[in-house]
Amino acid sequence: MFLSKLFLPILKEVPSEAKIKSHQLMLRTGMIKQSSTGIYSWLPIGFKIMKKIEQIVREEQNKIGAQELLMPTIQSAEIWKESGRYDDYGEEMLRIKDRQNKEMLYGPTNEELITEIFRSSIKSYKSLPQLLYHIQWKFRDELRPRFGIMRCKEFYMKDAYSFDLNDLEAKKSYNKMFFAYLKTFKRLGLTAIPMAADTGPIGGDLSHEFIILADTGESKIYSDKRIFDIDISSYTNQDNSINELRKQYDNFYAVTDEKFNKESFEKKVNKENQIITKGIEVGHIFYFGDKYSKPLKCSVDLQGGKKVDVKMGSYGIGVSRLVGAIIESKFNNNIMKWPHSVSPFDIALIANIKKNDNQTYTKAKKIYDYLIKNNIDVVFDDTEENLSSKFKKFDLLGIPFQIILGSKSTEDKFEFKEIDGETKLLSLEEIKNHLNKIK
Amino acid sequence: MFLSKLFLPILKEVPSEAKIKSHQLMLRTGMIKQSSTGIYSWLPIGFKIMKKIEQIVREEQNKIGAQELLMPTIQSAEIWKESGRYDDYGEEMLRIKDRQNKEMLYGPTNEELITEIFRSSIKSYKSLPQLLYHIQWKFRDELRPRFGIMRCKEFYMKDAYSFDLNDLEAKKSYNKMFFAYLKTFKRLGLTAIPMAADTGPIGGDLSHEFIILADTGESKIYSDKRIFDIDISSYTNQDNSINELRKQYDNFYAVTDEKFNKESFEKKVNKENQIITKGIEVGHIFYFGDKYSKPLKCSVDLQGGKKVDVKMGSYGIGVSRLVGAIIESKFNNNIMKWPHSVSPFDIALIANIKKNDNQTYTKAKKIYDYLIKNNIDVVFDDTEENLSSKFKKFDLLGIPFQIILGSKSTEDKFEFKEIDGETKLLSLEEIKNHLNKIK
Repeated sequence: MFLSKLFLPILKEVPSEAKIKSHQLMLRTGMIKQSSTGIYSWLPIGFKIMKKIEQIVREEQNKIGAQELLMPTIQSAEIWKESGRYDDYGEEMLRIKDRQNKEMLYGPTNEELITEIFRSSIKSYKSLPQLLYHIQWKFRDELRPRFGIMRCKEFYMKDAYSFDLNDLEAKKSYNKMFFAYLKTFKRLGLTAIPMAADTGPIGGDLSHEFIILADTGESKIYSDKRIFDIDISSYTNQDNSINELRKQYDNFYAVTDEKFNKESFEKKVNKENQIITKGIEVGHIFYFGDKYSKPLKCSVDLQGGKKVDVKMGSYGIGVSRLVGAIIESKFNNNIMKWPHSVSPFDIALIANIKKNDNQTYTKAKKIYDYLIKNNIDVVFDDTEENLSSKFKKFDLLGIPFQIILGSKSTEDKFEFKEIDGETKLLSLEEIKNHLNKIK
Repeated sequence: MFLSKLFLPILKEVPSEAKIKSHQLMLRTGMIKQSSTGIYSWLPIGFKIMKKIEQIVREEQNKIGAQELLMPTIQSAEIWKESGRYDDYGEEMLRIKDRQNKEMLYGPTNEELITEIFRSSIKSYKSLPQLLYHIQWKFRDELRPRFGIMRCKEFYMKDAYSFDLNDLEAKKSYNKMFFAYLKTFKRLGLTAIPMAADTGPIGGDLSHEFIILADTGESKIYSDKRIFDIDISSYTNQDNSINELRKQYDNFYAVTDEKFNKESFEKKVNKENQIITKGIEVGHIFYFGDKYSKPLKCSVDLQGGKKVDVKMGSYGIGVSRLVGAIIESKFNNNIMKWPHSVSPFDIALIANIKKNDNQTYTKAKKIYDYLIKNNIDVVFDDTEENLSSKFKKFDLLGIPFQIILGSKSTEDKFEFKEIDGETKLLSLEEIKNHLNKIK
């Protein structure tokens, strides 16, 4: 992609309405644009990053055998009345009347609808367990939206639902998701810690929030700091391995404030290991048994003919929010560095092109062509801006690698730089190999 | 994927509410499930097909240099008042009031919002031309939804927008889209013909509907049948080549009924070439100049400092509707055949497994493992249903290729069948090579 052609409306100033760094950076680098209060359009760079996050979330869901489907954004109020949540759910639910005066709503979550799909599709215990998920826009009519896409009205979320025969099996599904979440966040370059949490309007008695540390986070957390050192890389998605992993986490105290108990905290965590800080919730998982299956009559036939209500859990990841969460975690000292897995481009090609300077342009174009040919997604800054402005711009864009075509390059060696690291002189082949190693 | 694990609620009977074959097939094969009148959930098989269609649409948009972004589903009424369409647009627009009584709406299309994004992002003529698109859910509050996802309320659409300096440049953008549409539909296995059409609520003076022939279509068309024989394969996306292609199509009379004129039809088309029939609209493109840029004050600075309103067009493809349109075109005599490009699986492995028949299962599993290892997306019918039921089921599922593990297979040769074709005995390697050739 040529920078001159990219739809990238960069702002010169930090917009004053943006209070936290992710909101500031996303507006400044033209990732998003507010269309009305708390509702945003995703411009090409922001969209691309979100799509990459979505794909990683999807792949990790598929790896544990979850199947993707897609429920609509607009739901009928009827099933929410069946479950009893239509009245319970507050004003954050966007209620709509269609032209025939039928009560509809913009789904803030999908427990009811997936239960309705399941009950009319699956009849026998033989078809269990099932894990179903979708990635869909949700709406929450926030009274005071803030922090850009971190607390907005229309947001993109992955929500999965598990269906099992009994508590024991259901816990296995819960643990699978627990595992998939840790893997997902790791691939996104984040250390997200599962913290015992309250279940809120979803309900149930077992719940974890996955939280990354950030000063701007809205979740208060209390934990044993050693929980941050658990290495998940050696675990697999087999039940035994996942059980071991769960035990590792259960060894350490880690809760959100609704679950906080001063006495247990003091007792279970030595002074020097205590952390009391803030974080951003990027995922939340729930086990709630028959809370929805019972009122909605979602049962399966057992071998003898008896019916049993299925045991359910639900599992959310804030896909659009993760874009902001990654920025909160990776944007420091005016330099952003996207994890390579979600970077809008693999590499930036920054050339010092002056007016009527055909030579540098031609050289840069050759490098560009080589990279494209080798399936490396490069953005080429073909503008005539001066180099120092270009560097500042790319510090914000956060593409982790750069080729700089300035005074130090030779005929076949080029300045190659990791955004927060040293510069090396490398050949194109060396650069290609380096990038392929990381992929 | 093992069929026994796939979330695939197949119905035994054709649901009586379904009047056309795409609606019938989609319900029967568990591709969709109605969640409320005119609103559907997409179950795994249906979802997968729609995603493949979406990806082909996306690739062809990218090839002509269009950039993807994403606008929200919920829009503020304000910009619709600016353009004057808020009152004009009828009751099909789903109007919403949020908790603060602000007038919002569920976007049925995005001319206003994209114009608003553009006017606040692009200031200079130097940044033109621009092609922007998104693929997003839309809502149309149909009074009488019908034909399943063909005429429903919540639907998935690609809509693109072009921005140019003058009419001449704008026509080039229009023609590029014209070209991309023909390529897109061809990759989907469809012969879609551009027909001169009315512009309706979008406005403008130049418009084509892309239509595929189908008895159940809601568009009446009048055309010269020779237009169906135009071969687009030798054209490229260079302006000259596209001009030639446009000329080819302009040679033949082809209009929808609002544009029909009996006299010109009789004059321009010989009796033996006249077609009067029905079709399904799968795409619609418009050129409307400054219809939106003028009221919304979307202008760019010219070289001398003068401002000019940008010239715009818009370009829609019904992504969810295409799923139904392909079925209408490819489902005949109770046999469906998905084009390989959008088939839910590359191949079906149908084994005659009887109760306690470990031998056949083991043999089938080996074939399955081989295909998976070679990146062939296979669904393995591991159930104990009898073979003739399995065949009937797969006739409806429409996966174009099958390996049948029945009586005729030898140790290393297997029955390989194209769904509407002959059966051959092939080795696994031959099957693999055959599939790779098609990809």
